[in-house]
Amino acid sequence: METTIKPRSGTAFILRKGQRLKVIDPEGEQVSDIYCFNLDNKEEFLSSGRSLDYNESVAFGKGSKLYSNQSNIMLEIVEDTVERHDFLLTPCSKDTFRHFYPDEEPVPGCYGNLVHAFSEFNIPEHYVGTTFNIFMNVEIDKNGGISVLPPTSKAGDYTTFEAKMDLIVGLTACSAGESNNFKYKPIHYSVLDPL
Amino acid sequence: METTIKPRSGTAFILRKGQRLKVIDPEGEQVSDIYCFNLDNKEEFLSSGRSLDYNESVAFGKGSKLYSNQSNIMLEIVEDTVERHDFLLTPCSKDTFRHFYPDEEPVPGCYGNLVHAFSEFNIPEHYVGTTFNIFMNVEIDKNGGISVLPPTSKAGDYTTFEAKMDLIVGLTACSAGESNNFKYKPIHYSVLDPL
Repeated sequence: METTIKPRSGTAFILRKGQRLKVIDPEGEQVSDIYCFNLDNKEEFLSSGRSLDYNESVAFGKGSKLYSNQSNIMLEIVEDTVERHDFLLTPCSKDTFRHFYPDEEPVPGCYGNLVHAFSEFNIPEHYVGTTFNIFMNVEIDKNGGISVLPPTSKAGDYTTFEAKMDLIVGLTACSAGESNNFKYKPIHYSVLDPL
Repeated sequence: METTIKPRSGTAFILRKGQRLKVIDPEGEQVSDIYCFNLDNKEEFLSSGRSLDYNESVAFGKGSKLYSNQSNIMLEIVEDTVERHDFLLTPCSKDTFRHFYPDEEPVPGCYGNLVHAFSEFNIPEHYVGTTFNIFMNVEIDKNGGISVLPPTSKAGDYTTFEAKMDLIVGLTACSAGESNNFKYKPIHYSVLDPL
């Protein structure tokens, strides 16, 4: 059964060790930010720095592992029809809207939506760090310059993660214009029991 | 007056708004990791994701600003004779030693040294995130692969940061072999009052 995350919103839920989370881009060119906590220890959470270090690459795809701040594997990518994601950039937020789109009314963004969703699990705001940005297409040029391009994901494309510990997972349909080719679309997901 | 950080160690100290921190590589090819907290609110700390996002580059040098998780500028680079640093990778730690150097006895590394130094300010371990790695030379190839190369810093090279708020700063002489061309050297620093 697929659950819909409405455009520019987010949710949080428990994902048990061995369960798989399939994140689907139903219309194409839509980013979804993911962040997670160890269900049994909220001081253990996803770490971009540890994951980039152990992955020895900024490119993530099938077989890539996402690590916690305690160097444990939280999620592994087990299926991926896109193989183009980002783990450098902060989730969009009121602050990023003010910075990049000063003429627009700022919205909570993925950060605000995740903070709200995680608050149901009594997780404080400052525990929410840099997200893994599924389907986000970030290019680094030879001088180190970062560009955000439209996602390469087409309608129906998906990435599936397997939980390596019991987790609280937060997941969004991203709110930032540039990241989503300036159209705000939903994200679908399904939780699959262990094979 | 220059203070010495002995090889494979770290320290923490208060840096007031407007003060400048000059970090010197006295022998060359030595990395120094820096992390910081808002002195008045320890829930506000350095964020690699926010800094990469607002900097729109993985390359940092004179004029670059380092942001907090609350999107405020904590430090600005005001002098830089090296212009080659890293903000992608986690500080070295017992876990990274186990991962990358499984045949060696693991040492606390920059992470352990920072956690210890910050504990004097009652900062909990899990608040210590991805450091800005001064003089660390990280190359990203066209496929996204990350390589750690010897620093380009020569004896006497330095980078100076100006504090944009009152800070608790942690600073190390890095402990990882590959990052420092396999020789563990000291780091010098001095705190300069506002111009």
